[in-house]
Amino acid sequence: MRKILVIGSGKSSSYLIKYFLDKSSSEDLQLTVGDINTESAKKLIGDHPKGRAIELDVFNQESRQNAVKEADIVVSMLPARFHIEVAKDCISFGKNLVTASYVSQEMQDLDKDVKNKGLIFMNEIGVDPGIDHMSAMQVIDRIRDNGGEILLFESFTGGLVAPESDTNLWNYKFTWNPRNVVVAGQGGAAKFIQEGTYKYIPYHRLFRRTEFLDIDNFGRFEAYANRDSLKYQSVYGLDNVKTLYRGTMRRVGFSRAWNVFVQLGMTEDSYTIDDSENMSYRDFVNSFLPYSPTDSVELKFRHQLKIDQDDIVWDKFLELDIFNPKKRVELKKATPAQILQKILTDSWTLDPEDKDMIVMYHKFGYKLNGESHQIDATMVTVGEDQTYTAMAKTVGLPVAIATLGILNGKIKTPGVQIPISKEVYEPILEELKSLKIEFQEKEVPYFGYNPLNL
Amino acid sequence: MRKILVIGSGKSSSYLIKYFLDKSSSEDLQLTVGDINTESAKKLIGDHPKGRAIELDVFNQESRQNAVKEADIVVSMLPARFHIEVAKDCISFGKNLVTASYVSQEMQDLDKDVKNKGLIFMNEIGVDPGIDHMSAMQVIDRIRDNGGEILLFESFTGGLVAPESDTNLWNYKFTWNPRNVVVAGQGGAAKFIQEGTYKYIPYHRLFRRTEFLDIDNFGRFEAYANRDSLKYQSVYGLDNVKTLYRGTMRRVGFSRAWNVFVQLGMTEDSYTIDDSENMSYRDFVNSFLPYSPTDSVELKFRHQLKIDQDDIVWDKFLELDIFNPKKRVELKKATPAQILQKILTDSWTLDPEDKDMIVMYHKFGYKLNGESHQIDATMVTVGEDQTYTAMAKTVGLPVAIATLGILNGKIKTPGVQIPISKEVYEPILEELKSLKIEFQEKEVPYFGYNPLNL
Repeated sequence: MRKILVIGSGKSSSYLIKYFLDKSSSEDLQLTVGDINTESAKKLIGDHPKGRAIELDVFNQESRQNAVKEADIVVSMLPARFHIEVAKDCISFGKNLVTASYVSQEMQDLDKDVKNKGLIFMNEIGVDPGIDHMSAMQVIDRIRDNGGEILLFESFTGGLVAPESDTNLWNYKFTWNPRNVVVAGQGGAAKFIQEGTYKYIPYHRLFRRTEFLDIDNFGRFEAYANRDSLKYQSVYGLDNVKTLYRGTMRRVGFSRAWNVFVQLGMTEDSYTIDDSENMSYRDFVNSFLPYSPTDSVELKFRHQLKIDQDDIVWDKFLELDIFNPKKRVELKKATPAQILQKILTDSWTLDPEDKDMIVMYHKFGYKLNGESHQIDATMVTVGEDQTYTAMAKTVGLPVAIATLGILNGKIKTPGVQIPISKEVYEPILEELKSLKIEFQEKEVPYFGYNPLNL
Repeated sequence: MRKILVIGSGKSSSYLIKYFLDKSSSEDLQLTVGDINTESAKKLIGDHPKGRAIELDVFNQESRQNAVKEADIVVSMLPARFHIEVAKDCISFGKNLVTASYVSQEMQDLDKDVKNKGLIFMNEIGVDPGIDHMSAMQVIDRIRDNGGEILLFESFTGGLVAPESDTNLWNYKFTWNPRNVVVAGQGGAAKFIQEGTYKYIPYHRLFRRTEFLDIDNFGRFEAYANRDSLKYQSVYGLDNVKTLYRGTMRRVGFSRAWNVFVQLGMTEDSYTIDDSENMSYRDFVNSFLPYSPTDSVELKFRHQLKIDQDDIVWDKFLELDIFNPKKRVELKKATPAQILQKILTDSWTLDPEDKDMIVMYHKFGYKLNGESHQIDATMVTVGEDQTYTAMAKTVGLPVAIATLGILNGKIKTPGVQIPISKEVYEPILEELKSLKIEFQEKEVPYFGYNPLNL
């Protein structure tokens, strides 16, 4: 009997728990799910004989260490900042660890101890980061193994609403942390490489520098640049690449409308609005517009943003009801971003029957035998309902498969790591394919940005 | 013989030193000017029998304390962050102190000690802050003394180039610290009050929300909002005012053109540009524009900013030579703001014969006997040359007059203070008038923003 401890049973753990329970007989698994609140874990486990929920406060050393000690492997689904104590316990008691989070500096600093003990701490093995790493490295390694040289790598991910639940004018609902959506792109210029030149986009231009992406059967999307396009340049071995760009996908038209909020300053999070509690939505909008004794907030809004009378973007703002003088903000000392989040949550909350969707799009440009080629790879995963979401599926299944891979000795290289080696990504992508998380690849004419130079 | 110690002999000390030397006989003054480099002080003092320059390193406690000990009053013209040690010595040795700088928290914290010793530490007594405080409080106090209630206070200042030296398309040259001009407005939304409502303007909209101001004989100016409009609200006793706005003045058209740099991200100071050292001006501009194998940097620039073919703003950029592929940035690891500053310095540096100009514009709206009134007060000071600048005159003379006022016992209330009491501003403004620094006041129809409400 192999004992798996999962810490944290939040939104992204449904498929993870189901996977372990479904394999509990064939793989001889015993699952323990620890959380400070066991309600969700109990619901997900049901009366399955091989699963149990325990109360676990990650800040309580004794309860945490007792749970870790008993396990054969630990999966932490906690927010990233809570992993570190669990990680240290895993070193103390000689347990392997799996997380879907970015490797923090603290986590990276454990690498030597982890290797000394022969342990595996696998991180960034959800969807983004996770499936993006694995699917990109699989194609990049294949191109290189065939003697090709990578010229271009672009990668885009979006957490969206499924077509059948896509019922508003923004073609968007909150399927994950709303706050991250409201402040997305803030904190400095987006930086990337196009045809060998560094390019910079300041935040207030980000949503006007989008590009379009088409996915068979799912239509057209758009993408804006992430701040961190160069983060994995060296890790992926792309130091000599000519174009490197990472972005976030939305449905077409979202960014142009979102830009209006950015321009007005309604996404700012660095100061609080006076008397926000007693403001109406209309007052909030008006605080970013010049005073006028006669002109309406609507006309001032149109004028400031140069929104023509017949521009379809207008209906998006009406749909959000931002000009309503009766709806009150009711948040004390709130930042513009917090207030905007509240207004959006009124309209962008998933209905109980709504389904989410994860889309991913990679472009690989390369040179082989003197000729330029391009492979585009796309993945779309649609959720089943609001428990078994696409997000939970694409985050939880790679985590689960990696956990079993480590338990079964298929993944064996020790250290604090992310899934970019063949040993890790080959078996995981193979199994994900059987679970219907798979990429469609096609050869397309080389895209690049400078056909004249080829 | 009364001994005055001036510490620091930078750009703004020419008139200050001249004032003391001119009065040295009639007022029985002996002037010592201390600076780490005595060259400038020697030049300004010449062979005047009552002045001498001494080497003074403000970080050397012995030389600093010896100088302070010998003086009857100390004037610190150092940058604001260097005042504090001088201030502490002034307390130790029982000397009064005058500075033109904003009161830092450290300085404010000395208030109790200063009062206990019966000393006067007068700060913010240059032009802005300084003349703005005094001229505003004089009118505000007068309105109140007559039974009026202040409804509106707007105040604008600009450090500009004099009309006879106004020779470029931007109608602007650097007359003070260029860096402050390049990063002006950054660091959070501008906040002010219009007709009882708080208004917020994000940085990237600041230069598109200007207003026009006309000054007799000097024509039209424009102003953009300062970040700190509310800083002196309570100090001026304006807690119940309906409109409170402070701004920076430029010649018309400057802000619309400057906004282009803001939009592209060329004023950002939070990150460094890769290989900035070897970039041309053209490369720098291009790094904020999308890649294209065929389109020119010029056309991409026009397209991104929607600059029409016949828009006169275009010539402003050509004048700065920003598209030059041969001029090199030559700054290592520079931020966009640092690079832009260098490019602007090529074009905006004063010629030896150029004169600067300080403009100030106050609007006072008030209610008296049920009727609304408005007084507009304007001041323009033009420099004589590049030593005797308008900036040095408007900063140095109030400092000098205050110093003598304290020495002669006309200013006598102790404490760390700024010039907002009648005791201080009345004699100083009176003498400034005789030195041709004076405000033109006129009654105008009440401006307000809501004539319907009156």
